Amino acid sequence: MESSLATYERRTGWPLTVAAVVFLVVYAWPILDPGISADLSRACSVANVTIWAMFAIDYVVRLGLATSKPRFVRAHIGDLLVLALPLLRPLRALRVVTAIARIDRASASLRVQILSYVIGAVVLLALVAAVAVLDAERGSAGANITSFSDALWWAAATITTVGYGDTFPTTAEGRLVAVALMIAGIALLGTITASLAAWFLEHVQTVEQASSESQAELAELTAEVRALRAQLSTNDRMGSSSPETTE
Amino acid sequence: MESSLATYERRTGWPLTVAAVVFLVVYAWPILDPGISADLSRACSVANVTIWAMFAIDYVVRLGLATSKPRFVRAHIGDLLVLALPLLRPLRALRVVTAIARIDRASASLRVQILSYVIGAVVLLALVAAVAVLDAERGSAGANITSFSDALWWAAATITTVGYGDTFPTTAEGRLVAVALMIAGIALLGTITASLAAWFLEHVQTVEQASSESQAELAELTAEVRALRAQLSTNDRMGSSSPETTE
Amino acid sequence: MESSLATYERRTGWPLTVAAVVFLVVYAWPILDPGISADLSRACSVANVTIWAMFAIDYVVRLGLATSKPRFVRAHIGDLLVLALPLLRPLRALRVVTAIARIDRASASLRVQILSYVIGAVVLLALVAAVAVLDAERGSAGANITSFSDALWWAAATITTVGYGDTFPTTAEGRLVAVALMIAGIALLGTITASLAAWFLEHVQTVEQASSESQAELAELTAEVRALRAQLSTNDRMGSSSPETTE
Amino acid sequence: MESSLATYERRTGWPLTVAAVVFLVVYAWPILDPGISADLSRACSVANVTIWAMFAIDYVVRLGLATSKPRFVRAHIGDLLVLALPLLRPLRALRVVTAIARIDRASASLRVQILSYVIGAVVLLALVAAVAVLDAERGSAGANITSFSDALWWAAATITTVGYGDTFPTTAEGRLVAVALMIAGIALLGTITASLAAWFLEHVQTVEQASSESQAELAELTAEVRALRAQLSTNDRMGSSSPETTE
Repeated sequence: MESSLATYERRTGWPLTVAAVVFLVVYAWPILDPGISADLSRACSVANVTIWAMFAIDYVVRLGLATSKPRFVRAHIGDLLVLALPLLRPLRALRVVTAIARIDRASASLRVQILSYVIGAVVLLALVAAVAVLDAERGSAGANITSFSDALWWAAATITTVGYGDTFPTTAEGRLVAVALMIAGIALLGTITASLAAWFLEHVQTVEQASSESQAELAELTAEVRALRAQLSTNDRMGSSSPETTE
Repeated sequence: MESSLATYERRTGWPLTVAAVVFLVVYAWPILDPGISADLSRACSVANVTIWAMFAIDYVVRLGLATSKPRFVRAHIGDLLVLALPLLRPLRALRVVTAIARIDRASASLRVQILSYVIGAVVLLALVAAVAVLDAERGSAGANITSFSDALWWAAATITTVGYGDTFPTTAEGRLVAVALMIAGIALLGTITASLAAWFLEHVQTVEQASSESQAELAELTAEVRALRAQLSTNDRMGSSSPETTE
Repeated sequence: MESSLATYERRTGWPLTVAAVVFLVVYAWPILDPGISADLSRACSVANVTIWAMFAIDYVVRLGLATSKPRFVRAHIGDLLVLALPLLRPLRALRVVTAIARIDRASASLRVQILSYVIGAVVLLALVAAVAVLDAERGSAGANITSFSDALWWAAATITTVGYGDTFPTTAEGRLVAVALMIAGIALLGTITASLAAWFLEHVQTVEQASSESQAELAELTAEVRALRAQLSTNDRMGSSSPETTE
Repeated sequence: MESSLATYERRTGWPLTVAAVVFLVVYAWPILDPGISADLSRACSVANVTIWAMFAIDYVVRLGLATSKPRFVRAHIGDLLVLALPLLRPLRALRVVTAIARIDRASASLRVQILSYVIGAVVLLALVAAVAVLDAERGSAGANITSFSDALWWAAATITTVGYGDTFPTTAEGRLVAVALMIAGIALLGTITASLAAWFLEHVQTVEQASSESQAELAELTAEVRALRAQLSTNDRMGSSSPETTE
């Protein structure tokens, strides 16, 4: 039977994913459109805070439904950090990737699932980081990331660890965003490589592996048993009258 | 029996590969040789469009011959994108690598095949990206990639994710080419590492693996069966007159 | 029974870890706080030398207790280098990571232990490298790393191999620190990727592997033995009067 | 019996390795010491050409001794390139690494051997590349690599793919050296990661692997055979007088 926590999470899954998408819009819009009207900007702020409150209430309800409170807190430490630290708030958008990943869970292998989740998360993270770094840098004097196009270009060069150095954050907040993106880049590269390695090994090794030694020994054993059986048959046919040894 | 699609693909394989090589020449020539005559430049454009049409017709014919239309479209989404998006058109040259890879398919292992395909594709992609970025950057004011030698140098620093930053694209189109090259670089690194890991594991682990536990158990079992057989032989020799137990 | 070296190491473990933490403080403080009073600065120097002496005595005692002197020297070559080379002295702080890693040794798997040790070591190394590079660069003319915030930003860009090039060491000592950090970055990336690959393979392959060939052969063998046993039972029931073969 | 080629290679092994070390000295000295006397510089040139001739003769002799000429050429294509292309001549120094790697071949595992060879080759390649890039850049106007210390710093930043961009080659020859170093860096990273992954899998998986399925089946089979043997013993004790089935 499903626990009450699982029931709650299944029912609130889609509404909260929609809230995460709305959050992405109301977070990015005021940053990307400097000519936004004051009213719309205020509406975005209100929506932003409302969605934050929704996720906070969701966390409290789930904590209340969890059978082991300390284990829930430890298992969902990320949720708590995203709620508590304003800088991590954009990471809420990653919920969208989780939702998409859940759709085709049935069909794909574990490795493909993880790979598509990581790629999805990395693309979304690059987009969110571009918005966040633009927000941090635009006001700063001497900044070299001043348009969304620059910010996207910087995000691509950072997450692939190329780092030309033609664009880079100069503010403390921008640099924090950059460090998060660098770590995501390493995770991306690691996951792609590991997936490829696992794929190679599955398709190449599975066939060859069990073969060599263990197969030889099994063949020897099977021959032994087959000989034993033939011997028994012979003995049966002969009766116990003429005890000839076949060996 | 071969399907009509397979027959068609086998017959059109070499002509289309030759077309891809010709495409590479007529695509790169007008970019690399600024002093090209107007007539030759026009001839290259015509050849370029003609080859595009050839590949478009090829796609339509293959779609017509495919038993399952939707599955064909899904499996060949790359072909469709290369046809539809002008920016991806240079990727048609990758067909050359596929053709080369097909030649020695018989002899090499799967891992070597993939590795040689990836390295071939990466080298060709770097060349094509160098041509494409030079095309995009040369006209732009403040660009630092102004010769093919600069473009090749930039491509090498990008695909290996070194990214000195002495040369980098400044136009939107050049930056898109760069992002494609960065992704190719990550794929290159991942494939090389994964191939090495698979090679290590095959050559080292195969020998050691089956050994430890399972081998001990098999030895025990074989000893058991051998003892059983010896016992049966003894019994046979003795007849059923003096029932001595050997245990 | 525990050797006297093991007893000594168990007893001095925590005091030396505390000494390593104190070392971190007295090493970093005078560098990070330029307005430090002369008295405090002198106290830090004295503490620094005292801790160095403690570790030197510890090394000599352990060498004395070791059963095989040459093997001990070879196995603890790192300890000797950290004692002898002033530039490597900050690496003493890595002892803290070893101590933390030892705490949850019981619960975690080998892979998780190594991964958490490497991540811990990399974070600590980045911090120590930031302090060391700031110490080396601040006095130099034309240096671009002049604050601890710059130094941390430089360390992050270096250890992830992004390397924007907006901040970089210009002195010989700073460059040596940088090379150590680059190597740590490669080790970090390698360990993360390898851990992921091992995790993929364990969770995916374990189930599939033994299956295919070896399983089929075992099934065949088991059927063979089962048939043999049935035959023997039949023979026993019949006595040796009517020698019918069951085959 | 040893082939005459193998005998020749065993006998010329050490002399040629010494020649490679001498080559390293006479190659690097005139570049690193600009105040070298004209006589010494000329002596170095003569030694350089002499060593080149030694290796050329060695190649011809080995080709003469080889049983299959075409296979020898294919297997030693690298030797031919190092002889023919002046730019690749410094790679002759890699012979030193091969010689060192051969010393402890007996004791170490295949993985450790490859890893130590790659690390040795990478360190030597970085040194040689630093000398080569200094040679190429020093004469060039607008170059930023003007001392051996700069060249070493550039080599470290390149081979680890950090690429700050404070130092980079500006000449065509220097850029070719850089591309070789970038590729070596990717090979380094790949080999380290693959070695770690193989190590993880060996130490973690070996124990767990054979266990699950195949172990259960073997236990079942062993129980089956043990029961069979017990049954036979019972039958023997009873004689064939009272045919009781134990099942």
